[in-house]
Amino acid sequence: MQRYLPFLDWGRSYSRQTLGADLVAALIVTVMLIPQSFAYALLAGLPPVLGLYASMAPLVLYALFGTSRTLAVGPVAISSLMSAAACGALFAQGTPEFAGAAVALAALSGGMLVVMGLLRLGFLANFLSHPVISGFITASALLIAAGQLRHLLGVQAGGATAPELVPALLSALPGTNAQALTLGLAAIGFLVWARRGMAPALRRIGLPERLAATLARTGPVIAVALTTLATWALGLDIAVVGDVPRGLPVLALPPLDPGLLAQIAVPALLISVVGYVENVSIAQTLAARRRERIDPDQELIALGAANLGAAVSGAFPVSGGFSRSVVNFDAGARTPAAGLFTAAGMALATLFLTPLIRYLPQATLAATIVVAVLGLVDVRALVRVWRWSRADFIAQAGTILVTLGAGVERGLICGVGLSVALQLWRSSRPHVAVVGQVPGCEHFRNVARHEVVTAPHVLSLRVDESLSFPNARFLEDYVYDAVAADPRIRHVVLVCAAVNAVDASALESLEAINHRLQDAGVTLHLSEVKGPVMDGLRRAGLPDTLTGEVFLSQYDAFRTLAPEAARIALAGPRQAEPTERLRDAGRAAR
Amino acid sequence: MQRYLPFLDWGRSYSRQTLGADLVAALIVTVMLIPQSFAYALLAGLPPVLGLYASMAPLVLYALFGTSRTLAVGPVAISSLMSAAACGALFAQGTPEFAGAAVALAALSGGMLVVMGLLRLGFLANFLSHPVISGFITASALLIAAGQLRHLLGVQAGGATAPELVPALLSALPGTNAQALTLGLAAIGFLVWARRGMAPALRRIGLPERLAATLARTGPVIAVALTTLATWALGLDIAVVGDVPRGLPVLALPPLDPGLLAQIAVPALLISVVGYVENVSIAQTLAARRRERIDPDQELIALGAANLGAAVSGAFPVSGGFSRSVVNFDAGARTPAAGLFTAAGMALATLFLTPLIRYLPQATLAATIVVAVLGLVDVRALVRVWRWSRADFIAQAGTILVTLGAGVERGLICGVGLSVALQLWRSSRPHVAVVGQVPGCEHFRNVARHEVVTAPHVLSLRVDESLSFPNARFLEDYVYDAVAADPRIRHVVLVCAAVNAVDASALESLEAINHRLQDAGVTLHLSEVKGPVMDGLRRAGLPDTLTGEVFLSQYDAFRTLAPEAARIALAGPRQAEPTERLRDAGRAAR
Repeated sequence: MQRYLPFLDWGRSYSRQTLGADLVAALIVTVMLIPQSFAYALLAGLPPVLGLYASMAPLVLYALFGTSRTLAVGPVAISSLMSAAACGALFAQGTPEFAGAAVALAALSGGMLVVMGLLRLGFLANFLSHPVISGFITASALLIAAGQLRHLLGVQAGGATAPELVPALLSALPGTNAQALTLGLAAIGFLVWARRGMAPALRRIGLPERLAATLARTGPVIAVALTTLATWALGLDIAVVGDVPRGLPVLALPPLDPGLLAQIAVPALLISVVGYVENVSIAQTLAARRRERIDPDQELIALGAANLGAAVSGAFPVSGGFSRSVVNFDAGARTPAAGLFTAAGMALATLFLTPLIRYLPQATLAATIVVAVLGLVDVRALVRVWRWSRADFIAQAGTILVTLGAGVERGLICGVGLSVALQLWRSSRPHVAVVGQVPGCEHFRNVARHEVVTAPHVLSLRVDESLSFPNARFLEDYVYDAVAADPRIRHVVLVCAAVNAVDASALESLEAINHRLQDAGVTLHLSEVKGPVMDGLRRAGLPDTLTGEVFLSQYDAFRTLAPEAARIALAGPRQAEPTERLRDAGRAAR
Repeated sequence: MQRYLPFLDWGRSYSRQTLGADLVAALIVTVMLIPQSFAYALLAGLPPVLGLYASMAPLVLYALFGTSRTLAVGPVAISSLMSAAACGALFAQGTPEFAGAAVALAALSGGMLVVMGLLRLGFLANFLSHPVISGFITASALLIAAGQLRHLLGVQAGGATAPELVPALLSALPGTNAQALTLGLAAIGFLVWARRGMAPALRRIGLPERLAATLARTGPVIAVALTTLATWALGLDIAVVGDVPRGLPVLALPPLDPGLLAQIAVPALLISVVGYVENVSIAQTLAARRRERIDPDQELIALGAANLGAAVSGAFPVSGGFSRSVVNFDAGARTPAAGLFTAAGMALATLFLTPLIRYLPQATLAATIVVAVLGLVDVRALVRVWRWSRADFIAQAGTILVTLGAGVERGLICGVGLSVALQLWRSSRPHVAVVGQVPGCEHFRNVARHEVVTAPHVLSLRVDESLSFPNARFLEDYVYDAVAADPRIRHVVLVCAAVNAVDASALESLEAINHRLQDAGVTLHLSEVKGPVMDGLRRAGLPDTLTGEVFLSQYDAFRTLAPEAARIALAGPRQAEPTERLRDAGRAAR
């Protein structure tokens, strides 16, 4: 019970002190969340009020089911973009069908997450490797920023991919609304300054550090207030938010058409997985700072519940927001109750503040989105990954290019496919070394790197990889080639110290190698097989059919098969370094 | 040059002795291949003469490009079934479009194989794990045998999956042709006896062993001759092969419609990969017996050329046949020239023998197919794989069920998907052990299995898997949970002796672990990092940001972080076994 309802745990020890801390954090997050709600609703292509709706029920449900004490859920940039892309592929923006599709996305994605959580399928998120998710976020942020340019320019120009967006924007450029552009650029300038320079400036005029940092967080609210006031007072002719219905959302089961659900199944799955990966990553970052624990499988249920909450509120998919959660954490939130209070604050805002934002310019919201998402563009990650691993770079660059060129869904699917294929490719060519005995000790090293003793009739191969289907055939080829190349070989020893597992394909390959070597008059031995692997080989009966023996250590194998060579090696010139150190170095550098 | 044209190699040293051996082998294979050609054409749903055509040009091309000296290519059961399924999904059997699709399949599959060979993409075949291919062959053999029942019963009943075939056969049962059934059952009985009992019987009547074994191979030809004679002499009213056009195939570029090619792209890829996997597996089995080498990438080109040869002859996809290749090998074939002579033999048969087979009953061909493919059904493999690994069993059983229930293409795709997913799942939960120092030596072992010394403020974790995206998040969870569970921990040491590689996701995870532990006041260290992995970590700058140190050995780490505990452990009661043996056992059983 407690596993599925974590609030039973923290609720029991709730104190007045905790209440105070949570209330302060909730107030700060609420002030930050109001403009974000409008902005991400705009990004999702939906009426602004739905952003407010997405910031109430989901927060309450996450507070009940979530295991992170400080994660702040609600509308976020990437999920909003993915929702806009999925709904825009089916219906025209602004139609009731478009809004209905967003609700259905939230419902289906919530249902998928809850089911995955109950089945403990959190590991599925592992299919999204770091380079793919980082590339995807960078490309999405670029798409989002490009998409918001139309609000900054005050023009009409749509598109879900770079090849659609860029020409549309260029051809719309002559119709730029100078007032909107001026206001938007001013807002961007102010927001960038608020991020970087406001806190130091406030400290310089004598405010205490903590208060200065907190006030600096209110940059977006100040920008909203000032530009709204300016638009109203100066009577600017620009696109504004307009009338926002006052009052709380009416909770209702969303109408779910099976045909529609089938059409949005893939985007819903992708939104779920991306939202979940972000969610867990943020939750873990914050939890680790206070040595708290999160339960990744329960997080699936909590995020699923939050999305179901968004669906019954008539809103769009939600997830944990990074900047918001950090603010919540820094403001001193102690428990998920802070989320409950934030939801209450948003409810009050929905009841009383909506008339005030009638003249809020869309250009201001676009400016807050652009400033927020450009922080997500991570070009250094590309450079780093390129330096670290070409295979990972291919997956990352592929994800970015396909996302920009063909949209978020294809980009993500392509990234997952690429990283899985490259992972299999990598494990299909394991490092294999021919090893020989290091003179003066019982240690064996790669003949290509070290002066070691070997015997012409014994071939000792060390495989630096678990044996499984991607490399089973590679090992077969390797062994046959090596044996065919040297007719003196009578014994092959596979050194299995780095073999952590053997699957059925590799077992078949080992047996095939065994039989085929037997046909060629060569004996196959194993050495240094790990306990669990040996148990499995015994269960499969391999030791009985093996033409050779299973040796405890490679030295045992060499001493048995080539006693003279082993004796000479052991008596050989002692290394300059003491044996003990050499062994350690061997283990470290093999 | 020699790499792409292996005959330049063996052709240079061709002698009269080799010629004699190759001619004898070719004669025996030809006699075996004639009924097989007709049977597999029947299975592919095509006119019998195309089976003959598929046994000429492909053999010549394989002889020129192949690296196996004894592999016999030509029409085979699985490829013929897959061709029938792919063409049957688009066109009605018996139409020119159906035959055209088979030619296009051979052409596209050949083209794909050649391109894969030139790009050295042979590793792609690794995606087909042993359990999947074995399950696929078993299920295909059952589908083939069930499909041939209609010829044995002399009725009309089609279908590409078990749910289609079984009811069709049951409802057609009342119309059984008693003559066809009698003849077919007699042929099956004779063929089974020819496989098992003929050679011993011939030996018993005094024939030398080798001659008896060779004559026993002629079982199918004898069955064909006797049943054809009986049908003609008794005037049986059963389906027969009928008129087969006399003469060699007219070689022509097949007409390739881009729309058709797009429709058959997936089946062509699957036929290519399955054919190639079988091809390489047979070739390797035979090559290893004589310590010959095959080049897996060149085999792609050779099999591709063979299929292009089938396409220009107007025939269907081909591959290496197991029983035929074994016969070729046993009959003493020394070089691929045996394949050239077999092709010549088939050409002679096409020119002169076709009038003789007018009355060859289809039931006889069905009987030869059934007897051949039932040898491919491997139920013991299921039991073995179940015992060895549940994950592999799921992949195998899933492949069998989906192949039987939804056809060969879906079955194969499902099998590949399952085995890749299970592979990632497996590597997503690596074995992680908390280790401590074995008293009396510098060796570290799992605390759960051994009496070892640990220190409360040092947590040493040994990860038994390469670090990559499927398990990066698992490691993060594991480390945070362990640290959150024990507030005394001040140092975490990751023992990397079994870590063969670190990808970009795992690197990010290591850095995240490093930073998050730092936030929690815990230092992260590494020990026993392998050389190539350490090079990579240095390139990525990890040692600079690491809060702790990189130790050469785990003993170094423990001695530095917990000197008192390490001293006590080293001075501790010496084990009953000598230290050296204990170390070896440790390496073998960790």
